[in-house]
Amino acid sequence: MIPSTLDAVVTEIADEMRARSDRGVVASYIPELGRIDPNQFAITVVTQDGQVASGGDCDVPFSIQSVSKVFTLTLALGLAGDRVWNRVGREPSGSPFNSIVQLEREKGIPRNPFINAGAIAVTDVILSGHQPREAIGEILRFMQFLADDDGIYIDHNVAASEDESGFNNRALANFMKGFGVLDNPVEYILGVYFHHCAIAMTCRQLATAGRFLANNGVRPETGYSVVTQERARRINAIMLTCGHYDGSGEFAYRVGLPAKSGVGGGILAIVPGRASVAVWSPGLDTTGNSHLGRIALEMLTTRLGWTIFGPGAV
Amino acid sequence: MIPSTLDAVVTEIADEMRARSDRGVVASYIPELGRIDPNQFAITVVTQDGQVASGGDCDVPFSIQSVSKVFTLTLALGLAGDRVWNRVGREPSGSPFNSIVQLEREKGIPRNPFINAGAIAVTDVILSGHQPREAIGEILRFMQFLADDDGIYIDHNVAASEDESGFNNRALANFMKGFGVLDNPVEYILGVYFHHCAIAMTCRQLATAGRFLANNGVRPETGYSVVTQERARRINAIMLTCGHYDGSGEFAYRVGLPAKSGVGGGILAIVPGRASVAVWSPGLDTTGNSHLGRIALEMLTTRLGWTIFGPGAV
Amino acid sequence: MIPSTLDAVVTEIADEMRARSDRGVVASYIPELGRIDPNQFAITVVTQDGQVASGGDCDVPFSIQSVSKVFTLTLALGLAGDRVWNRVGREPSGSPFNSIVQLEREKGIPRNPFINAGAIAVTDVILSGHQPREAIGEILRFMQFLADDDGIYIDHNVAASEDESGFNNRALANFMKGFGVLDNPVEYILGVYFHHCAIAMTCRQLATAGRFLANNGVRPETGYSVVTQERARRINAIMLTCGHYDGSGEFAYRVGLPAKSGVGGGILAIVPGRASVAVWSPGLDTTGNSHLGRIALEMLTTRLGWTIFGPGAV
Amino acid sequence: MIPSTLDAVVTEIADEMRARSDRGVVASYIPELGRIDPNQFAITVVTQDGQVASGGDCDVPFSIQSVSKVFTLTLALGLAGDRVWNRVGREPSGSPFNSIVQLEREKGIPRNPFINAGAIAVTDVILSGHQPREAIGEILRFMQFLADDDGIYIDHNVAASEDESGFNNRALANFMKGFGVLDNPVEYILGVYFHHCAIAMTCRQLATAGRFLANNGVRPETGYSVVTQERARRINAIMLTCGHYDGSGEFAYRVGLPAKSGVGGGILAIVPGRASVAVWSPGLDTTGNSHLGRIALEMLTTRLGWTIFGPGAV
Repeated sequence: MIPSTLDAVVTEIADEMRARSDRGVVASYIPELGRIDPNQFAITVVTQDGQVASGGDCDVPFSIQSVSKVFTLTLALGLAGDRVWNRVGREPSGSPFNSIVQLEREKGIPRNPFINAGAIAVTDVILSGHQPREAIGEILRFMQFLADDDGIYIDHNVAASEDESGFNNRALANFMKGFGVLDNPVEYILGVYFHHCAIAMTCRQLATAGRFLANNGVRPETGYSVVTQERARRINAIMLTCGHYDGSGEFAYRVGLPAKSGVGGGILAIVPGRASVAVWSPGLDTTGNSHLGRIALEMLTTRLGWTIFGPGAV
Repeated sequence: MIPSTLDAVVTEIADEMRARSDRGVVASYIPELGRIDPNQFAITVVTQDGQVASGGDCDVPFSIQSVSKVFTLTLALGLAGDRVWNRVGREPSGSPFNSIVQLEREKGIPRNPFINAGAIAVTDVILSGHQPREAIGEILRFMQFLADDDGIYIDHNVAASEDESGFNNRALANFMKGFGVLDNPVEYILGVYFHHCAIAMTCRQLATAGRFLANNGVRPETGYSVVTQERARRINAIMLTCGHYDGSGEFAYRVGLPAKSGVGGGILAIVPGRASVAVWSPGLDTTGNSHLGRIALEMLTTRLGWTIFGPGAV
Repeated sequence: MIPSTLDAVVTEIADEMRARSDRGVVASYIPELGRIDPNQFAITVVTQDGQVASGGDCDVPFSIQSVSKVFTLTLALGLAGDRVWNRVGREPSGSPFNSIVQLEREKGIPRNPFINAGAIAVTDVILSGHQPREAIGEILRFMQFLADDDGIYIDHNVAASEDESGFNNRALANFMKGFGVLDNPVEYILGVYFHHCAIAMTCRQLATAGRFLANNGVRPETGYSVVTQERARRINAIMLTCGHYDGSGEFAYRVGLPAKSGVGGGILAIVPGRASVAVWSPGLDTTGNSHLGRIALEMLTTRLGWTIFGPGAV
Repeated sequence: MIPSTLDAVVTEIADEMRARSDRGVVASYIPELGRIDPNQFAITVVTQDGQVASGGDCDVPFSIQSVSKVFTLTLALGLAGDRVWNRVGREPSGSPFNSIVQLEREKGIPRNPFINAGAIAVTDVILSGHQPREAIGEILRFMQFLADDDGIYIDHNVAASEDESGFNNRALANFMKGFGVLDNPVEYILGVYFHHCAIAMTCRQLATAGRFLANNGVRPETGYSVVTQERARRINAIMLTCGHYDGSGEFAYRVGLPAKSGVGGGILAIVPGRASVAVWSPGLDTTGNSHLGRIALEMLTTRLGWTIFGPGAV
């Protein structure tokens, strides 16, 4: 792959995305997110060897929302190891991101760590033995460390907005608590959860933070091992099967990469051995995933021949 | 990769599997399958460059059952193109292989082509304009062509046994028919379905038949293109997200390869750009997938560093 | 109660119903039923002391459909006693009449004998040890006996139409058969089921046939005991809680009588100790129950003070 | 009916219940209730003409729990009329008392006012425009008025215990709030809900309080009309179809009276035109209803011929 090709493709995609009129619908159930201008688009690709290709609003911070679930899972696995799997599964849910039906059928154990209920259970693991403030700080510092950027911050207006309107997440957390799946007080857990969802990052920062997942668990620029090779692969596997809620199969079919989306319109996608990619466009499709973000990734992988389901470009 | 390594690993796995006492439970809801000796195990790996490594009972034919769904999907896509997707989805189901609940909620459209309901819908596509006998013949010849072996046959005792005990599949088919999702008579469709599930193959034949999926749609030994590169990748994507029913997430997490299992105890797994792998052991786990088959594949991928979720072995 | 009052109320209701323009929607999923003229209405009240008050098309036979389920339950209880309850429950379903979801959750045991699945299980009990033709004959003769009218017949066109379009019932029956809940061959059971649903009766005949339920199990005109007092009350209880599918609560709230509806537009309602009432109007509401039939019964019970939920008129 | 017969039957039942060893299981999910001695039993029958027959521990106060839902529904209908039905249905749920599945399917509208979610919606209606303390006071005064006994009180330990362990009810309320079904703050509503469930009453008080439902809405001792005749009948209808959660069909089948149970082990049953009956025994059956309470009521109605499904005793 010639660097200039990547730059060209990324620029091309940013241009095409800017021009499109179908932009999806901005999430409005969190009022603070509903105010975002849907005409924004950003993409950043960071390759294994440190090349960075960006397009669009790649230095505008956005609310990473559920993309944070990849990082809280990583953190929780570091803290508690496979005990995390005692309280959350690893199967696609076959249901919308906020469904409570499955929880009743399966006695409060969420299907996977990337739906809301599962991420709440993961947050409970991180919180253990900490005050909410400490846990929030730990998660934020982990993001800053991975992105190598102390400027990453939590948008407290978004966190407050989620707190005020977070009835569904309160329902999920109380429901799990009723089954004994959560250790900490519900309001503590939700406090941490709402704050890590409200982390604001740029595409540039997010793509940088994801690099260890493309590189067997190691941050390539420093050689520092964040997780073992096995764990990195397994996190990628869960991103592939569960990263886009009830649109995960469609995303795998069209894009063919492990990826995690958030209702803020961001998506982090991993090209194992090659690159970490972040895209952002606030409008969502009916499954709650970034409409243009998915299309942009499909263009990128098609044009560069990046996929985990074929031999790959040569 | 040195050939002798692959041979050694395959032999090692076959030996370990032979020795294990935990063998799962042979499917008994199809009486004819219930008679199979659970102490059998087979594995065949066919690499991109034509190397073949086998272990165990790799020349004993077994009932491929739902592994056939990969090939009927391939055939249906060839016949009807993307119109196939009008009557079957591409999402993991979050339910057991024979669940009817989702069909009621989603008006008779099965979630994906690899659960029973979905494969019945795919069979309906293949049947269109044919007599059942013709459709069965077409599917069988396709398998013989892919495996380059005219000896592949349908076990009529198994087909008859499924027909007699196939109440659940009859329920699924009638339920979809009631929603207008199926064109042909239910009994015609089920006749074809029961027969393609009853195809008998050895691991050697099955691994050979799967080669085009590891090679961008092209049979490597002849250069013949079975499907386009894009379609091959997309079939692999569906195998990854939906190939093991409600154990697909777990399989992706542990093995990390696109694969399709059958209740006969067979699994076909694809290592894009590298190899096609067939394993067989009749005992199933609680999700209806081959117990030792999954364990053998996990050993294989771990020991050879084969995974789609990491940079791969070098 | 002065007889003339009853006559006047019944005439009044028939007149009002004739004039209404909201008539519901005729069931079309059974093609033969879809041809019925929606402008028909009939009502017959037979009191305990033999008085008969009729209005509208009370001598036009209509397809009683699911109203037959009251009589097949009565017959099955006579044949097998409480063993009937081993394969069907006595709880409202909280689901539409043809739902299959509950069957999966509860291992093939239908919630009650008045939803389709439950009535199929009851038909299986009646069939035991008979040929379908014999069982159909037995049910028909039971209806003729209860209505004291040998002219009651089965509309074979309707039975054939149901048979051709009965995919949903085939799904339900095969699904139960898969759980081992049914003894006889599915097609035998459905043959009997489609035929007893296709019994044609007039309101006059139907109201007469229901008298034993209003009179502690005894046909008042002959003193013949059809069922025990306890059983009559219990059948009424099931009619009250389950007789209108997922509109049973609403019917109890508005009309306040044990009753069973059919998609042919008929309803049989019981006023314990007072009367048996049949109404018929082919148009259905969204829960699959006769739209004007329910309204007519609400008028009748309001104007006469007939209800089981209050002290009753004096 | 000769008074002495009623006395004899009631005494007989109390004696038999005292002797039984099968007593069900005391609800333990509310810790404070889990401490109750299961060996208690009480029954009080108050007839239309003021006769009172009691047996067992009829002057021991117990936690009425969900029996309070009959009275809060009555109160809410008085305050808001049929607008209550905009936010709660009138159909049996086909689910356990605390199920959240139905709420997701039906967009936050509970199926009926007698399951927890429905009673929470009713409490929201009562609360409107009040402080929680005022609403609690109003409900308590209503109970004291109906029972003509100012000694009725709220057990604050039980209310506090429910508050601490009420995760499931918090989940239900937040879930409905997320759908916009509730007007007031969740914690306000739950505060009132937990307190009215914690009202303590004796069987004597409860049977007295229920008299208006047996008497067309009028308190027979004073002639005061609590609700209209129509409303009284309709409340009875809802008690019949929904009063025992997912055991309502069974209760109607066995006992044949409108009734409401609570997890404290109390049941209020109405014999229209004849009597109001309260029974209490703390042990519950698998559907969450008083085990001996139901059996006692079945004996009572069988021995006295009281039922709404037959002509009644003469």
